[in-house]
Amino acid sequence: MEFASAIKVACVNGEPAGRHYDGFRPVAFPSVSSAGPDGAQRRQPAKAPLFSSPPPLRLFSSAPRLRLSPSEEKTRYDTDHIELFRQESYFAYLFGVVEPGFYGAIGYDPWGADCNGQAFGLLPQGLAFEPPYGHLHDKIHRFLLSKDCRDIASGKSILFAPRLPDDYAVWLGEIKPLNYFKEKYMVEMMYYTDEIAEVLQDVYQESHKPLLFLLHGLNTDSNNFSKPAEFQGIDKFETDLTTLHPILTECRVIKSDLELALIQFANGISSEAHVEVMRKVRVGMKEYQLESMFLHHTYMYGGCRHCSYTCICATGGNSSVLHYGHAAAPNDRTLEDGDMALLDMGAEYNFYGSDITCSFPVNGKFTFDQSLIYNAVLDAHNAVIASMKPGACWVDMHKLAEKIILESLTRAGILVGNVDDMMSERVGALFMPHGLGHFLGIDTHDPGGYSKGLERPKEPGLKSLRTIRELQEGMVITVEPGCYFIDALWVSAMEKSNIARFLNHEAIRRFKGFGGVRIESDLYITANGCKNMTNVPREIHEIEAVMAGAPWPLDKVSIYSAVNGEENKSGNI
Amino acid sequence: MEFASAIKVACVNGEPAGRHYDGFRPVAFPSVSSAGPDGAQRRQPAKAPLFSSPPPLRLFSSAPRLRLSPSEEKTRYDTDHIELFRQESYFAYLFGVVEPGFYGAIGYDPWGADCNGQAFGLLPQGLAFEPPYGHLHDKIHRFLLSKDCRDIASGKSILFAPRLPDDYAVWLGEIKPLNYFKEKYMVEMMYYTDEIAEVLQDVYQESHKPLLFLLHGLNTDSNNFSKPAEFQGIDKFETDLTTLHPILTECRVIKSDLELALIQFANGISSEAHVEVMRKVRVGMKEYQLESMFLHHTYMYGGCRHCSYTCICATGGNSSVLHYGHAAAPNDRTLEDGDMALLDMGAEYNFYGSDITCSFPVNGKFTFDQSLIYNAVLDAHNAVIASMKPGACWVDMHKLAEKIILESLTRAGILVGNVDDMMSERVGALFMPHGLGHFLGIDTHDPGGYSKGLERPKEPGLKSLRTIRELQEGMVITVEPGCYFIDALWVSAMEKSNIARFLNHEAIRRFKGFGGVRIESDLYITANGCKNMTNVPREIHEIEAVMAGAPWPLDKVSIYSAVNGEENKSGNI
Repeated sequence: MEFASAIKVACVNGEPAGRHYDGFRPVAFPSVSSAGPDGAQRRQPAKAPLFSSPPPLRLFSSAPRLRLSPSEEKTRYDTDHIELFRQESYFAYLFGVVEPGFYGAIGYDPWGADCNGQAFGLLPQGLAFEPPYGHLHDKIHRFLLSKDCRDIASGKSILFAPRLPDDYAVWLGEIKPLNYFKEKYMVEMMYYTDEIAEVLQDVYQESHKPLLFLLHGLNTDSNNFSKPAEFQGIDKFETDLTTLHPILTECRVIKSDLELALIQFANGISSEAHVEVMRKVRVGMKEYQLESMFLHHTYMYGGCRHCSYTCICATGGNSSVLHYGHAAAPNDRTLEDGDMALLDMGAEYNFYGSDITCSFPVNGKFTFDQSLIYNAVLDAHNAVIASMKPGACWVDMHKLAEKIILESLTRAGILVGNVDDMMSERVGALFMPHGLGHFLGIDTHDPGGYSKGLERPKEPGLKSLRTIRELQEGMVITVEPGCYFIDALWVSAMEKSNIARFLNHEAIRRFKGFGGVRIESDLYITANGCKNMTNVPREIHEIEAVMAGAPWPLDKVSIYSAVNGEENKSGNI
Repeated sequence: MEFASAIKVACVNGEPAGRHYDGFRPVAFPSVSSAGPDGAQRRQPAKAPLFSSPPPLRLFSSAPRLRLSPSEEKTRYDTDHIELFRQESYFAYLFGVVEPGFYGAIGYDPWGADCNGQAFGLLPQGLAFEPPYGHLHDKIHRFLLSKDCRDIASGKSILFAPRLPDDYAVWLGEIKPLNYFKEKYMVEMMYYTDEIAEVLQDVYQESHKPLLFLLHGLNTDSNNFSKPAEFQGIDKFETDLTTLHPILTECRVIKSDLELALIQFANGISSEAHVEVMRKVRVGMKEYQLESMFLHHTYMYGGCRHCSYTCICATGGNSSVLHYGHAAAPNDRTLEDGDMALLDMGAEYNFYGSDITCSFPVNGKFTFDQSLIYNAVLDAHNAVIASMKPGACWVDMHKLAEKIILESLTRAGILVGNVDDMMSERVGALFMPHGLGHFLGIDTHDPGGYSKGLERPKEPGLKSLRTIRELQEGMVITVEPGCYFIDALWVSAMEKSNIARFLNHEAIRRFKGFGGVRIESDLYITANGCKNMTNVPREIHEIEAVMAGAPWPLDKVSIYSAVNGEENKSGNI
């Protein structure tokens, strides 16, 4: 199939085809024909209306939370400094539009032969990018079909572009005709944003007040609500704010093949960049120099202009600060001999992210204590991955990781007592206060972790879980166990007898200032298990070999070199 | 003087002391003693009150425009994706605070021996960074003193930090004590933001409703107004929204030595990065790869985490799009043999920016036409710089640049007729629709271009000027003449007989698709002239030599190599 093979070309092993100035062009995703792989299906509107006495027109709309005209470019404070625009994620998901100021709708085909007065659509606003995303509609339609929402599954899509002033051409570039966007984003219809009310009213001329479904719902990671779309003439419509958000969110939880390809690409280039940083890190550098190398590699060789999140380049004690790297803790420490580094960095490619953490000693050689903590976390990471498959409960996975870490710490004499008792008392949360992982997609913390009816746990550690769902085929989720020595938690821990009785205070004192270890990979749930999309050195011997100059993946030669401390001489073995 | 020499250490030639992984640490600005170079002056409150019947307490406040709690970190749309915080510029100017959520005030010393019930202050909110900025208060005080505002010139400064929740220490880092910030930012007093009303009321206990001066005013580049600060209990104060903004803006127009040092540092590292890009550019690359190289160089070797503005990496026809590079025109063209590149990129260091444009052929060799346009612009650039000094009018400078470009185009036969007549008909605006330059500082388009009473011109070209002021010693302003062939302007130009009569249509057709040339340097106005803070190859032979591998600045060897097309062999001459 032409479509599928195009994806393969773009993402072979997650690495771009070329790597050098004169050769490399990040692979552009070819245009998907408007029929797409499921085009036929899209063209067949279903027969039975969903609602027994349906409102004649239903249309969805989404918009970001800010009061500004949604998904517009924003200026910094009162200045004319324009922040680089990044499309709102639901809009990116549906339409892939990179430009600011667009609105969009998906509706039942009221112009088509099967029009029976029923229409249903999506009208998000925002901005996005390059590969046409029209095919994603199919996923929604399949989802809706599976829910017996057959009347809303035609996928006729409309985009509305802002009408640009003449001098846009002088300052910002060519004013593209509507047809340009119609082809680029593969929508059936293309209008200007000042025509929204008129066009949507035309869709169902007989209705006095057609119904629009607007995107409005809670993001369970931020606790923010998305702000429903606004446009001139919206008062001519009835609006529904509750139906669309859970449906679209659920669609985003299960990834399509194209989405997987994009996440794999982001993972591939980010994995490479992590390896590059490992090779170049030196005592005496600043933490932000590691960030700079990562960003450069992913942009220069992967075309990733955006990062999934602000890079966390934590060394020494900073590695126990879970979200280090922000403006008030800006990766500005100097690397010292003996430090552990915890680098949590992921590039975003065409909206889709990656989220990878590598932990290693900055001087390239693990000490005994560093190995001890690192392997405790690696064992947890690997055990979880070995257990992941459809039906597995994410809370159980979190507890599995905790238990393995507690067992390792007990074997090492850092903890004393029965591990099951420790689990009951939630001792694990002292070493890993964050959740085991989260959905990953267009957002780093992709939505849908708590679908309706699911309640966030209240226990230490578990309350930080971003999802408690059972795994399903098609989910992409991070696995990121960690073990940290966080001063701020020890004081209260020592005061709680139910916790303190498990702690070997002397041993723990040894780890004061150690920081922490986190190992994070991005996993795709398959029919029978899962696939690790991240490809970086994980075993201690692999890390030490790569930091000593071995290629990645390791080959026999490089293993030999690492073991013998010699330069990699190709052909020696 | 210890203070001055510290600056010299930080900014020798604008280049960091070290350049290599294991050696480089961006020079940290040493703490300025709380007395500072003018400390003595600060400690002597003036005697006479400004107002004959003054309100007992006056306090300034500033805040950004958004409705969110001002200068807080912002999340992207409804998600928990946190955008990297950058302090609001007025707040950065006064306090240099890098952390979000702070408020600040500068007041007459009501606790001191000279307290006579008069108080005056500044209360901006926002976030910022590292070198203590307390000294800047002195400049404001000197300015206010010169305006006979002697009662408001004591410079007693107060910062208010947000009270952080306990779990900040787990997720975001150590919760610093107030004393840490008091020392870091060199303020006399340090409180929490939930104490603002209480603290400010204590300043003058006898007043029923003390007066606060809040920062609120028009940014003449964006046409946005800054939003005055808000805090709990503000209703207990009278507020003044008009006094502070013009005073602070005027302070920002004239740079202090420390500000100049920071701008010079940003210029130095950005100049280096431009040279680096020139050397590495190759036909077949993507435009964004040039952006990536620039960003990497300035962050890796200069510690510049922020850019002054989104990089403009325009090649071929894109180089006539004045503000190319934004999300809808994202530097994604492939470089072709024969293209001109127009790279407008500047790093920001500790809030202070640079703004540099280099134009050159991507294959390293100017064609006849490329030389022609390039030299027209370079002559304008150089002539303006030669004429800049205190008292020179910026409108005259703009016209000078225009005239030189028109003369060159006339000599080349692209234009026909009398250049003075062309000037009268504003033909220059057809080739250079933007203004000659703008103030540069904490904002790329630093405020103050149109102080009270100055009106924006209405004529083509001139109406785009960001300032029409006379130059003064201490101003930093960009000089950025350009010559572009902008399709969108030709159609209407051809229709206007007063313009069309000067155009050699055939010659102009030759330049269709040529794009444009811009040459931009950052100039500091001295007592008798100006100093160019930018240091990049400008003459064609310099550019060609550097692109062929010569070092920068050029030496005899490299000139020889460039001329002879040989590799640079040290010691050959």
